[in-house]
Amino acid sequence: MRNPPPLKLGILGSGRGSNFIAISDAIRARQLHATVSLVISDLADAPILSLARARGYRTWACPAGRFKTKLEPDLEAQLAAQLRAADIDLVILAGYMRVVKTPLLAAFPRRIINIHPSLLPAFPGLQAWAQALAAGATVSGCTVHYVNEILDGGDIIAQARVPVLPGDTPETLHTRIQAEEHWLLPAVVGRFAAGKSA
Amino acid sequence: MRNPPPLKLGILGSGRGSNFIAISDAIRARQLHATVSLVISDLADAPILSLARARGYRTWACPAGRFKTKLEPDLEAQLAAQLRAADIDLVILAGYMRVVKTPLLAAFPRRIINIHPSLLPAFPGLQAWAQALAAGATVSGCTVHYVNEILDGGDIIAQARVPVLPGDTPETLHTRIQAEEHWLLPAVVGRFAAGKSA
Repeated sequence: MRNPPPLKLGILGSGRGSNFIAISDAIRARQLHATVSLVISDLADAPILSLARARGYRTWACPAGRFKTKLEPDLEAQLAAQLRAADIDLVILAGYMRVVKTPLLAAFPRRIINIHPSLLPAFPGLQAWAQALAAGATVSGCTVHYVNEILDGGDIIAQARVPVLPGDTPETLHTRIQAEEHWLLPAVVGRFAAGKSA
Repeated sequence: MRNPPPLKLGILGSGRGSNFIAISDAIRARQLHATVSLVISDLADAPILSLARARGYRTWACPAGRFKTKLEPDLEAQLAAQLRAADIDLVILAGYMRVVKTPLLAAFPRRIINIHPSLLPAFPGLQAWAQALAAGATVSGCTVHYVNEILDGGDIIAQARVPVLPGDTPETLHTRIQAEEHWLLPAVVGRFAAGKSA
């Protein structure tokens, strides 16, 4: 049985990059047959970029443009070109806080995945853990899904669940959900790496 | 950071053991920090037992007793005693075709998991893939859940999805679901191994 080459990952994030670290750790531990080829943020001072540089990964800060919730088409086209130039196999949104539009979607058809901190289709959008708590949910979790033009609306690949416990605050619930994100996302990437993508 | 000792697994199956093999392969590839301490079948001639022996694992054939869908209490108590004697941390039902009752449940509280070939709570019971197809489902998948006294009814830990495609037969759908089982189950076991169990 010949091993396939490692899956080349492009990771996009706007924050502290804990899911990026989980993926990087899984690769370092040889639990995931992939390589992080490029880490991109829409925020030049996002911790994910400094963390990525500290681990020796190539990074790129995308110009943020005029909007906060999306990139203008020409900027997103630049972002897609960076990923294409790096020959990325799979694009991972790991806390990337903008809606993805046609330039990126068309460049990587069914090759962009996102992790979202709720059991979609429940609670799309921001602070999903706080939404779940406010709604009185008794279970929550996280979802890895394909990205399409609908916010948190693409086909679901996998989900992991956690209980919502008495006395939970948004922070305690968020922490419990993130512990699940950090094994589920590398596992799903491993599924792509093994060529089992649907 | 000190590594925890490997998680000691007890695996129960009645069939050909493809999920057992997936776990064993993940351990051999050092992708899963666990050890298979005991493989048990309720059928002395089940392929899972000969496969396990061929890989050098300890096996035990449980006396089948009078029923096909459950073990009599004294037989299930013997089974639980075997697992306890092997100091098992986590019991995995991998195609084990009997309902689990009090003797085993009480011996391993919240330490027994099962993998089921549907998106529970939809389609519990036998040939869940065929049930999904007959019902006209457009998505199906698999579920890893805690085992309790309700058949396929314990708390869900994680799920993976597949599309149901035009022209699917029960066999093609089952094959597609099993490909997901073979990454999801080892990943969930890895979550327990990392001490992240809920």
